[in-house]
Amino acid sequence: MSKPTLALIGATGAVGTVMRELVSTRDDVWGEIRLVASARSAGKVLQVRGEDVVVQALAPEVFDGVDVAIFDVPDEVSAEWVPVAAARGAIAIDKSGTFRMEPDVPLVVPEVNPLDARNRPRNIISTPNCTTLSMMAAIGALHAEYTLKELVVASYQAVSGAGVAGPARLYDEIEALAGDRTVGQSAGDVRKALANKLEADSPFPAPIAFNVVPWAGSYKEGGWASEELKLRNESRKILGIPDLKVSATCVRVPVVTTHSLAVHARFEREITVADAHRILEAAPTVVLMDDPANGVWPTPVDVVGTDPTYIGRIRQAVDFPNTLDMFVCGDNLRKGAALNAAEIAELVAAEF
Amino acid sequence: MSKPTLALIGATGAVGTVMRELVSTRDDVWGEIRLVASARSAGKVLQVRGEDVVVQALAPEVFDGVDVAIFDVPDEVSAEWVPVAAARGAIAIDKSGTFRMEPDVPLVVPEVNPLDARNRPRNIISTPNCTTLSMMAAIGALHAEYTLKELVVASYQAVSGAGVAGPARLYDEIEALAGDRTVGQSAGDVRKALANKLEADSPFPAPIAFNVVPWAGSYKEGGWASEELKLRNESRKILGIPDLKVSATCVRVPVVTTHSLAVHARFEREITVADAHRILEAAPTVVLMDDPANGVWPTPVDVVGTDPTYIGRIRQAVDFPNTLDMFVCGDNLRKGAALNAAEIAELVAAEF
Repeated sequence: MSKPTLALIGATGAVGTVMRELVSTRDDVWGEIRLVASARSAGKVLQVRGEDVVVQALAPEVFDGVDVAIFDVPDEVSAEWVPVAAARGAIAIDKSGTFRMEPDVPLVVPEVNPLDARNRPRNIISTPNCTTLSMMAAIGALHAEYTLKELVVASYQAVSGAGVAGPARLYDEIEALAGDRTVGQSAGDVRKALANKLEADSPFPAPIAFNVVPWAGSYKEGGWASEELKLRNESRKILGIPDLKVSATCVRVPVVTTHSLAVHARFEREITVADAHRILEAAPTVVLMDDPANGVWPTPVDVVGTDPTYIGRIRQAVDFPNTLDMFVCGDNLRKGAALNAAEIAELVAAEF
Repeated sequence: MSKPTLALIGATGAVGTVMRELVSTRDDVWGEIRLVASARSAGKVLQVRGEDVVVQALAPEVFDGVDVAIFDVPDEVSAEWVPVAAARGAIAIDKSGTFRMEPDVPLVVPEVNPLDARNRPRNIISTPNCTTLSMMAAIGALHAEYTLKELVVASYQAVSGAGVAGPARLYDEIEALAGDRTVGQSAGDVRKALANKLEADSPFPAPIAFNVVPWAGSYKEGGWASEELKLRNESRKILGIPDLKVSATCVRVPVVTTHSLAVHARFEREITVADAHRILEAAPTVVLMDDPANGVWPTPVDVVGTDPTYIGRIRQAVDFPNTLDMFVCGDNLRKGAALNAAEIAELVAAEF
């Protein structure tokens, strides 16, 4: 039996870089691995599994003979090229928002709904937005036993969720402001200091150093940011709870990589901290870090660059029945993006 | 009629510094102003209302002839000295946590419950914790018309909430890490870089640069941090809603000053975004910044150093009836601390 051929579309981006590392270090289930990117990056030589691979420009022919194609490209590129790949016989795993809510495209988190990956009438499988993904393995494990009814979420989202330009901007701003021990103490002083030293062009709609920015994504009706509605709609679809109640506030913070979420979750019946610990300790890709009396809880800088979903600060709500408050951290470039796509690809590869 | 005498206890701290600025620039309702601090700071000369004032060491005699004493000192110092001031005839306004939940000590936010300041059988008035205060003027205005039932809050707390050592540590960490454009990308790299350059001694239980830290205060039963329970208990007392349901998750972020809160608030009856706008526009110390289609919402660096409570990102919850999601910012050293105490002192001064 020959191993399936994999194509990575968007191989040069922030997620693409992690994806190359993942397919180089995880179980080697792949035959040929092709790297594909925009015409601008074509001809570049990148390493995969320790070997040099020449990046090919995106074109219909690159999908010939490809069994599985992982797309990490902007929405409009996915909209055009995912159907091309599928039509040429590849199973397309798409990281963009384009197909996630289509009823005939499964939205898959392998720990939560692996069987959905089998039902893919259009040969397309979608992978969720990084904010949703950063908590889903942990929340899915609790839901499986206690049945989730409501989620109120506030996010602490890392800058790399905005692509490679995000960390570059944060490092630039930090460098521009470091050494000034008065900055951040009067209104507008950070903006003024940055305006003197950096170009205005930023992936963020406000300064991100010494600040938090309550906006992620594009404007939607009712004052919602698109990431907040994605968290709602995608959680419902992945968990298979069409009437799940969700409210989210998405906030960008000056963290390079790893999204954190404060989660207030109501279940169908009473769930204690001990119940949650038992479930989460047994969940294979979840790491429980929950001993606050001894200062044990996850933070971004302690877990970044690793695969699991970390959870701590689990408390039974004092005033809300059947409800837990929690703090979850997940690397938005790994489980939040590349790793989930790689895991779906491996699920599919097992069919060959 | 002679103007009342004011004493500022803890005049040299982070809040004390803002307090001296406030009494120097607000309506001049005070006669003599005495500055008091620990024996270590006694003899220092500080400016108030443009005049030099010699700092006196805390002792029973400093309260002789004092009408109003504002305390910004650690809990144990308040526990000892607030009753001394009250016994010597001063009305003591205490910023510490010591007396806040005592039934015979009012807990006052002048915009919300000014009349409670009149009922002070022990001659003591308490002012809330800075996290609670940072949202209270806005939440109180909405409650007055729509009756609050539930609050789910996640905080983004500035480092100056931990005292003058907080900003010093953040600036130190930023300086130590600036220029390294790989930091924050692998687990523990921030800790390692800091360990090489800085002393381990930090007011925070984890790195605060390039990080968020889900812990504020001391350990309480059930895994709660003391600040989370304060937000619950103090909100109930200030708003006069003994059965208000509250869950909070308190998280420290690398912001110098200005606490932000993501607030999910359920009311007794339906409240629209337009209703909330009407109320908040009319609330005298609240500034509405809520036009997300045009990128208008508050962030810490845009409002720090100013007095109002800023609110934006107001949305009607999609799945929860009678519920708004919001984002609130307030300077934790001003409205969150010194300003609220100064306002209570002015309420009391008007009685003289």
